[in-house]
Amino acid sequence: MVHSRKDLQYCEELFRRFYSIGSTTDGGVTRLGYSPVEDMMHEEFIKSGREMGYTDIADEAGNTYVCNSMDDNYYLIGSHLDSVVEGGRYDGVAGVIAGMMVLRWAKEDNLQVPVRVGAFRCEESSNFGCCTIGSGLITKEVYKQDIEGLMSKDGQLLGEIFEERGLNIRPKKIEGVRQYLELHIEQGKVLEECHTKIGIVSTIAGPVRYNLYFHGMAEHSGATPMMMRKDALCAASEVILEIERIGQRESMYQSVATVGVLYNKPNAMNVIPGSVQLGIDIRGIDTASLGRIESGVLDAARNICEKREIQLIEEKLSSIPPIEMTKDLEMKLEKAARELNISNRIMVSGAGHDAMSFAAICDTAMIFIPCDKGISHNKMEFATIDDICNGARVIYEHIRRENQ
Amino acid sequence: MVHSRKDLQYCEELFRRFYSIGSTTDGGVTRLGYSPVEDMMHEEFIKSGREMGYTDIADEAGNTYVCNSMDDNYYLIGSHLDSVVEGGRYDGVAGVIAGMMVLRWAKEDNLQVPVRVGAFRCEESSNFGCCTIGSGLITKEVYKQDIEGLMSKDGQLLGEIFEERGLNIRPKKIEGVRQYLELHIEQGKVLEECHTKIGIVSTIAGPVRYNLYFHGMAEHSGATPMMMRKDALCAASEVILEIERIGQRESMYQSVATVGVLYNKPNAMNVIPGSVQLGIDIRGIDTASLGRIESGVLDAARNICEKREIQLIEEKLSSIPPIEMTKDLEMKLEKAARELNISNRIMVSGAGHDAMSFAAICDTAMIFIPCDKGISHNKMEFATIDDICNGARVIYEHIRRENQ
Repeated sequence: MVHSRKDLQYCEELFRRFYSIGSTTDGGVTRLGYSPVEDMMHEEFIKSGREMGYTDIADEAGNTYVCNSMDDNYYLIGSHLDSVVEGGRYDGVAGVIAGMMVLRWAKEDNLQVPVRVGAFRCEESSNFGCCTIGSGLITKEVYKQDIEGLMSKDGQLLGEIFEERGLNIRPKKIEGVRQYLELHIEQGKVLEECHTKIGIVSTIAGPVRYNLYFHGMAEHSGATPMMMRKDALCAASEVILEIERIGQRESMYQSVATVGVLYNKPNAMNVIPGSVQLGIDIRGIDTASLGRIESGVLDAARNICEKREIQLIEEKLSSIPPIEMTKDLEMKLEKAARELNISNRIMVSGAGHDAMSFAAICDTAMIFIPCDKGISHNKMEFATIDDICNGARVIYEHIRRENQ
Repeated sequence: MVHSRKDLQYCEELFRRFYSIGSTTDGGVTRLGYSPVEDMMHEEFIKSGREMGYTDIADEAGNTYVCNSMDDNYYLIGSHLDSVVEGGRYDGVAGVIAGMMVLRWAKEDNLQVPVRVGAFRCEESSNFGCCTIGSGLITKEVYKQDIEGLMSKDGQLLGEIFEERGLNIRPKKIEGVRQYLELHIEQGKVLEECHTKIGIVSTIAGPVRYNLYFHGMAEHSGATPMMMRKDALCAASEVILEIERIGQRESMYQSVATVGVLYNKPNAMNVIPGSVQLGIDIRGIDTASLGRIESGVLDAARNICEKREIQLIEEKLSSIPPIEMTKDLEMKLEKAARELNISNRIMVSGAGHDAMSFAAICDTAMIFIPCDKGISHNKMEFATIDDICNGARVIYEHIRRENQ
């Protein structure tokens, strides 16, 4: 559909106000969850709401909201404002901006319905190795219990950070939500390759995550013969390639397996690596496939370490099953898109989102919009203002139709 | 041989005064070259000399010396005081202490011969990816030209550091050295396994070093199918295992190949690694074998990166040929050991040492002493005071015999 110049301008203005926050020298942004940079994002969000005359609130987990009413039974439209390390500017932010667009249109149309735009803390697992912390805590999501012991990249405990900020690691459960609706960039290439404007998410893949620790022997690289070594990095490399092979084998079930994190110690030119930590991320929507990957990865690591006389320590960080979106809402969004003449398709989400937290407590749906070449978690991440407006419009159209 | 209690006590006292400098929480030490911690080591060394009434000097590269005379044609006995990251307390320090023991015995015997104990800067490549900087600069060693552009672990240029410290990156060449003699822990298991007290080094393996940079594509780990990835860490892992295989194949020529350094970016749980840096260390005493390893490693990296559509950047850091010690001195040290009834064997050094720098400008020899289980570059590194005294005594006996 064609958007008014004023809508596009307002949307772009919202986007621009976040632009410089957390910018890195190479062109991306680093806005880690529960960091001062993420705080600046929330302050800017609140400011944008106040400028439009909306009310704003914050909850006990540090999530912030801009609302047109304090009434219950509200539509909650949200996403997050944090990013990965050297990530892009659309992941999360696009969803919060979409919420602001919905508020704008509701006001223009004088639609008497409570809408709340939510900005949730620490959706990315980049800072604590654990995703959707802000939304997970307030929805009492089962995997967000007892997480005060998680450690930030800087070595601070989440519990300490909450205490310093006057937040509550066991906050009140969020109440009064009628529906949770989230717009997000696809972070994949399906929409772009299919020339489709809108994806409506049916299922979100659940991440299974591990840290594996390999302990060998740090010795002099020049004076230790090849046959006498216990090289932790060589063992870890074998495991990395095995994980890639297992992921490829299971890709027919839309599963993926990734080693995103590697810490090598002591990491010196003249020392054989003594210990290595790998961070492993497994995702899919097929529970059997996820199970095969998980056991395959652990078996491979155990066998390789036994063969190489390397000590292996396994640490399971999370295991979230695939999460279904609300079928009825899926159909309503499809209908709204059709009414607006916006091309759409039902699809799965490989990435996790705040919508996972809400699926258990209220009707929940997600809209995907295309992102350039499918690139995300990268400074080259890009989506158009037009596509953000398309997605926001589908959400608004659905709300309008429910309340006309 | 049996050492007097006073000798052992003095030697232990020398060792203890360095003990706490640069200690890390896990029990090792980190004393990076041209860092404030290394400065403290040199200050302590100078202090130990002054307490005994010796003269001390420093040269333009920051190396320090303790001497019983300022006369030329001196015996230079030295090693280094820096360490790798989380290294041990004997590597380098033992050789400087041995020099102090020689000074002590010369004084006791009233031996009128000039002896200088040298403590050379930044022998380890842990801070700048380049070894023997202090000794290399003052001997005008060919591989230590134009190194002002080397960058420290903290991101500072060597040239800047020299300027800040009032040092000269092109210092005067050291003069007046009669012989260079260095004691060092073996950093291997040969002496221990052969129940031999002293190793006399015939050849030092020369390190060939590379940085390899792998550039793939950082993308969302959940939303990017396995077949669409350009995972830099998987490519690097394949190369690591290939380097291990090549090293094992060439081990019959006493060659080794090690990947000691790995930097993974962005190193986040939910992002496919976009770029990886590997630091590769190749050593041996057989030039043909070294050549085969070097070309084998580069071929493997190029093929793997081509297959995976990963961009590869190769950076050669150094290529030092194997260096022979002075044959005549080797025999004299052997004779001195025999006279003292200390078991000994001729052997090669897989590790690099400051002696490499001196071999081109004066007669040069090295003495190895055993270290526990061959462990070095590790907090568990250990050598006995008795073994340090044995090695020092062989050096002193040789000097005494030349001057009686």
